Amino acid sequence: MRKPLIIDCHGHYTTAPKALENWRNAQVANLNTPELGPRVSDLKISDDELRESIEANQLRLMKERGSDLTIFSPRASFMAHHIGNFETSATWAAICNELCYRVSQLFPDNFIGAAMLPQSPGVDPATCIPELERCVKEYGMVGINLNPDPSGGHWTSPPLSDRHWYPIYEKMVEYDIPAMIHVSTSCNPCFHTTGAHYLNADTTAFMQCLTSDLFKDFPTLKFLIPHGGGAVPYHWGRFRGLAQEMKKPLLEEHLLNNIFFDTCVYHQPGIDLLTKVIPTKNVLFASEMIGAVRGIDPETGHYYDDTRRYIQAAALSDEDRFQIFEGNARRVFTRLDAALTRKGQ
Amino acid sequence: MRKPLIIDCHGHYTTAPKALENWRNAQVANLNTPELGPRVSDLKISDDELRESIEANQLRLMKERGSDLTIFSPRASFMAHHIGNFETSATWAAICNELCYRVSQLFPDNFIGAAMLPQSPGVDPATCIPELERCVKEYGMVGINLNPDPSGGHWTSPPLSDRHWYPIYEKMVEYDIPAMIHVSTSCNPCFHTTGAHYLNADTTAFMQCLTSDLFKDFPTLKFLIPHGGGAVPYHWGRFRGLAQEMKKPLLEEHLLNNIFFDTCVYHQPGIDLLTKVIPTKNVLFASEMIGAVRGIDPETGHYYDDTRRYIQAAALSDEDRFQIFEGNARRVFTRLDAALTRKGQ
Repeated sequence: MRKPLIIDCHGHYTTAPKALENWRNAQVANLNTPELGPRVSDLKISDDELRESIEANQLRLMKERGSDLTIFSPRASFMAHHIGNFETSATWAAICNELCYRVSQLFPDNFIGAAMLPQSPGVDPATCIPELERCVKEYGMVGINLNPDPSGGHWTSPPLSDRHWYPIYEKMVEYDIPAMIHVSTSCNPCFHTTGAHYLNADTTAFMQCLTSDLFKDFPTLKFLIPHGGGAVPYHWGRFRGLAQEMKKPLLEEHLLNNIFFDTCVYHQPGIDLLTKVIPTKNVLFASEMIGAVRGIDPETGHYYDDTRRYIQAAALSDEDRFQIFEGNARRVFTRLDAALTRKGQ
Repeated sequence: MRKPLIIDCHGHYTTAPKALENWRNAQVANLNTPELGPRVSDLKISDDELRESIEANQLRLMKERGSDLTIFSPRASFMAHHIGNFETSATWAAICNELCYRVSQLFPDNFIGAAMLPQSPGVDPATCIPELERCVKEYGMVGINLNPDPSGGHWTSPPLSDRHWYPIYEKMVEYDIPAMIHVSTSCNPCFHTTGAHYLNADTTAFMQCLTSDLFKDFPTLKFLIPHGGGAVPYHWGRFRGLAQEMKKPLLEEHLLNNIFFDTCVYHQPGIDLLTKVIPTKNVLFASEMIGAVRGIDPETGHYYDDTRRYIQAAALSDEDRFQIFEGNARRVFTRLDAALTRKGQ
């Protein structure tokens, strides 16, 4: 068996040049006076600055850790869809997506884009479609990040099974792109963003799918649930039992043709459980580096988010490991597969 | 080593006679016209009815599964603190707590009470203290259930680290009783009650403690986080790493003198992870039967919530198992220990 291409399906541009954050701060400061700027053209980031921000960070770590290609989307916590209105998010998403596209052009062997959407609380998700189309058609992006809670921790949108979201799903099916279900910053003081809100959203999204028949309406829709699926694999018996009480089919049939989990679980016992409990075909390698947990684990001497080590050490066959590192990502992200195939990979 | 007493620290009176639900429905129907009743005295449940509801259900399963003693509190999903006002909750909590007390009097060897509190969204938690005192002093209850989100899925209360909650904590410390941090029914359509809201609340509560210095203010305060700690043990590396980034002490020192997890995880791999990752002294046996998941797992032929089997099969020493079944519960629920000691147990 050939050595797998190691595809990290969950990377965000967390290291963008400071000018991006400054621009956003100016946008937020003028939310009620947008005529005072900033204009999109006020943001100037050179290719050299982009290169530097990647080479010194993500690319350096990818080389050190031995991953090849990252599916790269705008910084999740900075999406902050709760800020401002649709126009605010539309401008911000366009800027952030374009930067990820430029990174993918500068490092075509190492990065390929996934889009954030210009969601806004209470706004019809159909408004996101022009940006989604642009990202797929013009930028060659291979997936999207869909925020099930654009309110940022107040959970005011309908569940993912609601027809509210169907315009997005129709477009996803048309383009055959998956969505990573990923919330952004919590502005609810009850929820720490990366320690509670992210994991809660993962569990919540899974359960919204479980209680519904969404995938009967969209048999080819694909959701990637990040952070190892939140609490789901740890409570797999609970979820199997709940589905059983609701007279749903077995989870394999009910959800696992459509739902996938990434490997952003930052210790060996967690990865061992994930890979034991969830069928291999539903697990996609990811690290979300450089992200929520950037330190070195004193118990191992390695970075917490160096998830490749855990996959390497897990009780998996070479074939399973190949699927987790490469095969599953190519199956779920078909546009990524097509792009690799075009390059002879 | 003597055979442990098997103490199930997480049982709710989910099988109360139908008259209780009927009374509650009448209360809810007259929320705006409480003068139309029902009166507390309208609820009539005989000792025989209580006996029957327990003997045919919890006690039968306890005998079948081999557990000895259950810490028994009112049905969590029926607390529904979001309904009505403080008076609504005060009357309802008093009724439910009294029923649990009566069960503990009818079956003193098998049940001991823990109290629900008459919480109400936006109401000072200090208003719960008279009911708490009554339950401890008159009913001999050994713990309380504290709902971190009395709004039922809208999370409108401050985090558990806020001084808002301190009156409860002062009373807990005075009586040396622990709180199980347990939400109730979700009225937010995003959150399925037992498949999302419960687990999310567990994770949220842990993270609220992690980001704060609550246990510096209350070094003897004890929280029991149910459902195996939500997503926490599965993501233990993430939490260790987040604490490290925040320059908090190691979790062992920062939280594990005060936070405990129950074993309501309904499959073997989940229990294996819990008992591997979390120090034994922080794990308390529990099943939450007859609760969210009442079926038989087709993969094992046994009840999902027969958690004793998983503990029995986990890679634990006899001493560890003794602590999980009995020792830790007696250390955390000191009033339970005192009651057992008085009986020569």
